[in-house]
Formats: sequence, structure tokens, C-alpha cells
Amino acid sequence: MSAIKELREYFEEIMRLNYIQAALGWDQEVNMQNYKSLEGRSKQVSLIEKLIHKRLTSEKVGNLIKKAEKLSNLNEIESAMLREITREYNLATKLPEELVVEIAETSILAAKDWREARSKSDFSIFQEMLEKSVELQKERARLYGTHPDIYSTLIDLYEPGATYDWIANVFNPIKPKLIDFVKKLNASSDKPDDSILKKSYDPDKQFELSFEIIKKLNFNLGYGRQDRSTHPFTSSLASLDTRITTRTTEDYLNECIFGTIHECGHALYEMGIREELYDTILCEGTSMGIHESQSRMWENFVGRSKEFWIYWYPTFQKYFPENLKDYPMEDLYKAINIVQPSYIRVNADEVTYGLHIILRFELERDLIDGKIQVKELPELWNSKFEDLLGITPPNYAQGVLQDIHWSMGAIGYFPTYFLGNLYGAQIYNDALKKHPSLPEEYKKGEFSTLLDYLRENIHQYGKIYRASDLIKKVTGEDLNPDYFLKYIENKFYPIYGI
Amino acid sequence: MSAIKELREYFEEIMRLNYIQAALGWDQEVNMQNYKSLEGRSKQVSLIEKLIHKRLTSEKVGNLIKKAEKLSNLNEIESAMLREITREYNLATKLPEELVVEIAETSILAAKDWREARSKSDFSIFQEMLEKSVELQKERARLYGTHPDIYSTLIDLYEPGATYDWIANVFNPIKPKLIDFVKKLNASSDKPDDSILKKSYDPDKQFELSFEIIKKLNFNLGYGRQDRSTHPFTSSLASLDTRITTRTTEDYLNECIFGTIHECGHALYEMGIREELYDTILCEGTSMGIHESQSRMWENFVGRSKEFWIYWYPTFQKYFPENLKDYPMEDLYKAINIVQPSYIRVNADEVTYGLHIILRFELERDLIDGKIQVKELPELWNSKFEDLLGITPPNYAQGVLQDIHWSMGAIGYFPTYFLGNLYGAQIYNDALKKHPSLPEEYKKGEFSTLLDYLRENIHQYGKIYRASDLIKKVTGEDLNPDYFLKYIENKFYPIYGI
Repeated sequence: MSAIKELREYFEEIMRLNYIQAALGWDQEVNMQNYKSLEGRSKQVSLIEKLIHKRLTSEKVGNLIKKAEKLSNLNEIESAMLREITREYNLATKLPEELVVEIAETSILAAKDWREARSKSDFSIFQEMLEKSVELQKERARLYGTHPDIYSTLIDLYEPGATYDWIANVFNPIKPKLIDFVKKLNASSDKPDDSILKKSYDPDKQFELSFEIIKKLNFNLGYGRQDRSTHPFTSSLASLDTRITTRTTEDYLNECIFGTIHECGHALYEMGIREELYDTILCEGTSMGIHESQSRMWENFVGRSKEFWIYWYPTFQKYFPENLKDYPMEDLYKAINIVQPSYIRVNADEVTYGLHIILRFELERDLIDGKIQVKELPELWNSKFEDLLGITPPNYAQGVLQDIHWSMGAIGYFPTYFLGNLYGAQIYNDALKKHPSLPEEYKKGEFSTLLDYLRENIHQYGKIYRASDLIKKVTGEDLNPDYFLKYIENKFYPIYGI
Repeated sequence: MSAIKELREYFEEIMRLNYIQAALGWDQEVNMQNYKSLEGRSKQVSLIEKLIHKRLTSEKVGNLIKKAEKLSNLNEIESAMLREITREYNLATKLPEELVVEIAETSILAAKDWREARSKSDFSIFQEMLEKSVELQKERARLYGTHPDIYSTLIDLYEPGATYDWIANVFNPIKPKLIDFVKKLNASSDKPDDSILKKSYDPDKQFELSFEIIKKLNFNLGYGRQDRSTHPFTSSLASLDTRITTRTTEDYLNECIFGTIHECGHALYEMGIREELYDTILCEGTSMGIHESQSRMWENFVGRSKEFWIYWYPTFQKYFPENLKDYPMEDLYKAINIVQPSYIRVNADEVTYGLHIILRFELERDLIDGKIQVKELPELWNSKFEDLLGITPPNYAQGVLQDIHWSMGAIGYFPTYFLGNLYGAQIYNDALKKHPSLPEEYKKGEFSTLLDYLRENIHQYGKIYRASDLIKKVTGEDLNPDYFLKYIENKFYPIYGI
């Protein structure tokens, strides 16, 4: 057997262990919310982690990689496989096991402190563990040494190939434009009113309706599920088993509806990967940014479009006649598209969302570079927030303590969210160019043309192409934020009567 | 570290892998009923199986066992641990890996054929795979060689220490007594009418009510769950994570209510094992028979008692006023205790149940001994059924094809069900002797005295004592079927006005 085939086979077991870990994690989030002890589960998870690490760092992998590198006849998939396997192997072998264990343990303890700190809105409870967590991530990045600057090394974990400089060059010119855009909209005298979204909506009915929506969006129920959890997420438990979760809030309709469409977008990506890649290292989204482009595309470009609501509004009225029977569709469309500075990232609108991300991106960088200290974060967060969004969080729970990411050691993750919006706009622009009738189809409840386009151009490839190659292959050019900026102008000026 | 401590530690990982396998199995039964492909999951399960087998049969275990056997200062728990580890090791190392794989694959294929055969009521579809399955079990038993006769070796897998002769000596004298007893009841002119149970009962409400019941029975929701599945079962996914499932049938109230109490009984056993045994090989029920004694005790001795219904009937009336508002409790009590020959084991009453088991027990033995052939089973089943229960199944689906066990290779399992009833009666008799007020407590919705008794005398020990030792320790005598016979006389004569 050739070295690359041997590698593929060897990694099948690692992939299965990854899926098993995903299954245990999914079960924990969905089914164990009321459990008094997670000790048994956490030991199961760490056992699987240990087995993966052992298999991943074995000498055999190193030898097979060396042999495979000498092969001259690798096809595109095999080359990509070798690239990803080499990447995983290099990362895994560079960390001593003690550091792996310390990072894992710290992330559990830090997440615990973070939860308490957030609930009490008291940063001091979290500070010590966050300091430790930041130091461990710096140490880890130094050992990886993927890029000359360690923040880029961390970014690369989530957005392979991306660097700090590259992202800064993308974000910096957008920042003032977004700030101005938000101001301009909010200066309008014709602003939407979103109070309708904050009436009482039966959570069970919301869930039922969101289930109807994902079925129409071609979420495949033969290979997936929708459940409830405290924090919505998408997880693949096998190549043919992708599950999403939904959170419902009785007095905020957006949470369930757009959250579900968002996760459905992630799931459609995973469900669309071509069969040839099943159980290989290539059988997942190519980067967090591209993944987010899919979720945000369905959530915003489709789910928050007028045409989508022309089709769905009668169904919403049937589900919630007490609130919506006599409420005009046009006003609801405006309500779900209200643009206004707010404190919480996950509830932010399409426009201000990017500013929430830029804030985190800049703080992360300074933290990793040592320009600022953990203890300064709360105040810096608030003053930066004031600069970007014109408002100041009333407390730390709604400020620096709102996200779980840093406690988990996920530094360098945030920028991929905004990259996703930008990638999404560029891809969606291309989809519209090739299929101008898309919006007309939404009006009739047809969503498969867009999905077919995405499957053909994005989904099927899994991790074969890096994000930067993929965007060029699909749209003919590098990432270009202008598509996003044009999109928000075209969409929001009419809504705000500008 | 001493050899026994090393063994304990080494086996912790095997236990965790077992729990992981249980988690994957639970998820498959509960969450993947509509899935079009189980391939990914089945590969995950077989990977875990492989890892367990590898770890279990390693030379290290053999060496540690030898060392531990020489230790003179083992305490009771350590001795039991060594006994069970040795047993598992001996069994695992006696089978060549090819046979393990062949048995696993055959059981999947046979279960598939069995499902089709049952749905078409056509035994010929199943015959070939059943023949293969029987041969493989015989081969397996020969290799194990635990007992001189291979049927005893198979029985021993489920009821450690039990043999064919021992069970036959228990069952044989009961058989004619049960047959006579059923005839006597059915000759009465005052027979219960169970049509009330077959009215329409909203499945969701049934589930809700069954959930109320298990909470009252002290099922611990901090360490377990209740879900739905096609076939009800109980599974421990960790030492502190025991889950039960429930099946609801709209026009048969018994299915959900007594099925749930039954599974709850299994779960209470697992939940009551003492902390010292967590994550060890002793952390489960000591035999299938003792396990079944717990489930049947709660289901029948408690759940089908008049006192239980004195407490619960008002709640049932509240849930199902359309059927029960004006229906007398006394008649419902009689309805749930109707004794009549029927075709399906799992729906059989307390009295005829034993005859269903004896039928299977005798057929299994003859099959394994080569006295009868697989192809003769359907006709032999029917004629034996006529002898034991006085009726003949109208088709094979309601006859020889009704149970999944043989297709899975579980030959020797059936007798443990009836042993469970017998153990249960003997233990319950002891509980009543020590706590005569138990029935009075049920009337008030109090069920913790019985649970405390079971925890103290049965549950806490896990697998420390073999079934035969445990029953003697608890009740002061060996298994004695008279308690069961006395119980059914005392209970059913009054119901039937005899």
C-alpha cells in the first residue's frame, strides 16, 4: 500500500475517535444540563483525547509523512490530505504532554470561574485564570512557531493561512465606514420599531416553527437532528450525522428563528461534503471563516431578506396570531433588520456585528503582544466600546465577560466571525450573479438553487482548498470586503428611508 | 503499587470504554431512529469494542492476575474484583479474534433477517442466520469450557454460577403448578375485564405521568434521564449516569406505565451501588436474574399492588378523566392484574410469564444439545405453547419470531427473566417481614423504605457477591420458589373471587 493510502487508513481511526468525542460532547450539552456530576463524562472525554493524541503523535505517522512527501503522483485530494495530516502532526508533536494536560485543565477551571464572574458581573473572579490562560496560549503559540508573531500563530489555528497583518489590512479600512454607516442610519427619522419581536412567543411553538424552516432549507433529517441546548451549536457525530441545537427565548423571537437558521447553515456545509472525503481529515469545513460565511449567509442574506418573509410570514401569523395576525409584514421585515448599537455580540445586527468583532480582535492582539495586561481589559473594553459603538456597557457581564472564548483559551478565534460575513457577502454576490432569480425563488419557498450552488462551489470540497484559494476559485478574486459594504448599503438605506 | 491496585487502575480505562460504548448505544436507540445510515456509528462502536478487547486480553492483565492471586491480604472487595477480572480475562482470551468478529457480524446480519422475518411472519427468512448463530454460540461455549455442558456455559454468561441442572430443578416443579393455577383462575366466574386499559390514552400524557411516577420512586434526576425509544431499556453511561427509556402505546396503558416502572427498578439498582465501586468491574448488577428481580419487584409487587393504586389512581383520573373519572379503582386494579394465556411474552401477566420463559428454556436446551433442529423450532414452539398455555399462536410473528434474543446470539439469557421473578418474591417477602408497613406507605405515596432496604441489602454491593451468595445473605436461605407461588396465590385468588 502506498504511504498516502496507509496514512488515510491510519487516520480513519483518529477521525472516528474525533466523532466519538463529538458524540460525548453533544450528549453532554443536550442531555446532561440537569446533571449533578459531569465527572464520569469528563473522564471519558479525556480518555478519548489521550487516545487521539497518542495515535496522532506516533512515530508511524512521522515516517509515513516522510515517505508520502517523496511520492510524485499524488492527486489533489491526496495532496490536501497530506498537507492537513502534516499540519496536525506538527502541531501535536510540538507540545509536551504536560502542557496539553495543563491547557485542558486550565480551560475547565477558567470556564468555571468565567461563569461565576459573569453571573456576578465581577471581573476579579476571572482575572487570575484568564491571566494563566493567556500565558498558556502564548507558550503554546511559541512552541508551534507557525508564524513569526504569536498572535498570527493562534489565528492560524482557526483560519489556516491567515495572519494578523492580513486581517488588519481587511478590517482597518472597514472600521470607520461601519462607524459612519451606523451613525447615518441612526440619524434617520424613519427608524424601525422592534418591539413586536419582544412580545410573548410560546417557546414550543417557536421550536416547532424553526423545525419547519430547516426542513424547507433542505436540512437532511435522515442524517441529522435538531435539539435544544443552553448554547446553540452544530456538531458532526459522523460523516453522515450532523446535528444542530436551538435556544428559545420567550420574549425575543430572533433568538430561536435566526439562531436556528444560522446553525442550519453550518450543518448544510457539513452535510454537503462529498462522499469521497467521508472519514478523512478533509471531511470538515475548511476554516472557521468559511464555515461562518455559510451560517451567516443563510441567517442574514437569506433569512433576513424580504423575499424570505414574503413566503414565511403567513406561517408565522398562523403560529402566533395573537401577536402577528394584524401586524404588517413590511414592519416585521424592518423590525428584524433594525440596526442599533447594543452590548451583546450574539444579538447584534448585521452592521454593528463587525464592530463587536474588531473590538475583540484589537484587544486580543494587544494582550498577546503584551501591550496591555489582563487586569486592564474591563476598562479598555468599555472605552473602546464607546469609541466604536457610542455606548458604554452598564456592567462587565454585558461587557468584557460576555463571551466564553477566552476562558477556553480560544484566542484568535473572534476575527473569523467577521471574516465569515465578508466571505459570505462575496460568495452570495457570486451566487446572485449566476442565479439572479434566487430571491424570487425564496418567495415561493424554494431554497435548493442556492444550496446546489453552495454544494457545488463550497461544500463538496470540505478541507481540500484553503479559504484563500477557495474564495478565488469560486468568485475569481481574493477576499474583497466591498461586497459586504455594498450589500449593507443596498439593504439598509431603503429600510431606513435613506 | 500492589498487583490488585494496578489491576483496578488498569481496568478503570476498560470501564470507561464500556461506558463510552453504552453512550453510543443509548444515543443510537434514542436519537437515531429516523437515520438512513448507521454505518458511521457502527464503525465507532466496533472501534471501541476493538480497543476494549485489546486492553482486556493484554499480557499485562494475565501477569497481574498471577501476581494478585498470590496476595494473601485481599479484602472482600479486592477478592471479588480479582474474581471478576479473572473471569473476563479468561473468557476474552479464549476466543480467537476472528470468531469474535464473526459473532459480532453475524449478530448484526441475523438481527436484520429476524426483523424482516418477523414483519412478514416468515420463519424461512430467519432460519439460515439463526442456524449460523446457534452454531457460533455452541463453538464459543466449547472454547470457553466453563461447564461440562455447553448450555450451562452459555447460561453462566448471564447468570454467573448458574447451570442448566440447577435451573431445571427450580423450574420443573413450578411448571405444572403454574399451568394448574392459570386453569383454576380462568375457570372462575368472576374474571377481571381489562377493556378499560385498551381505550385511547394520549401518549404524551402517559409519558408525563410515568415521569411523575419515577420521581416518586426516587429515580435520581441529577444522575439520570427518562427518554423514549422503540424498545424500552436501561443503560448506565457512567457510574453516575443511568438512563431509562419508555415506549408508549396509545391504546394500551400498561405498556408505558409498567414498562417505565420496570426500567426504573433496573435503574434504581444501578443508582444504588456504593461509591467505592464506581468505575470498577464491580459497578453493575451482579447477574441478570438479580437485576430482573429488582425491575419485576417494582413493576409487579409494588406497581401492581392495590396500595400503589390507592395512592396513584386520583392522579390517573386527573390525567385521563375521559376514561377514568367514573371508573372504580377496584376494577382498574383487577384489570391490570388479569391473568390469561396470551402470545407475547413482554405483555404477559405475572403468572403466565413464567410459562413463556420455561418454553424458551426447554427449546434452547434441546437446540444446543442438538436434540432439535432450528428448522423444527416454529412447529415445536406452537405445540409446546399449546401444552403450556392452552392456546396456539396464530402466526410465527406472534410465536417463535417474537423475541430478538436468539438473533443476537443471546442463548441462555431467557431463564434469568423467570429467575428474576423468583428472586424478587423471596427478597420482597423478606422486605415485608422486616418492614410490614410497606403497603401502608405506598398508600401515602412513600416508597423510600423499600428502596432503603434494597440499597442496604442488594444495590450497594454491585457485583461483590454472586447471586446465590447474595440471596442467602439477604434472606437466610437459597433460592426458594415457594415465595413466588405463595405470593401469586395470596394475590390472585382474591382478585378472581376464589
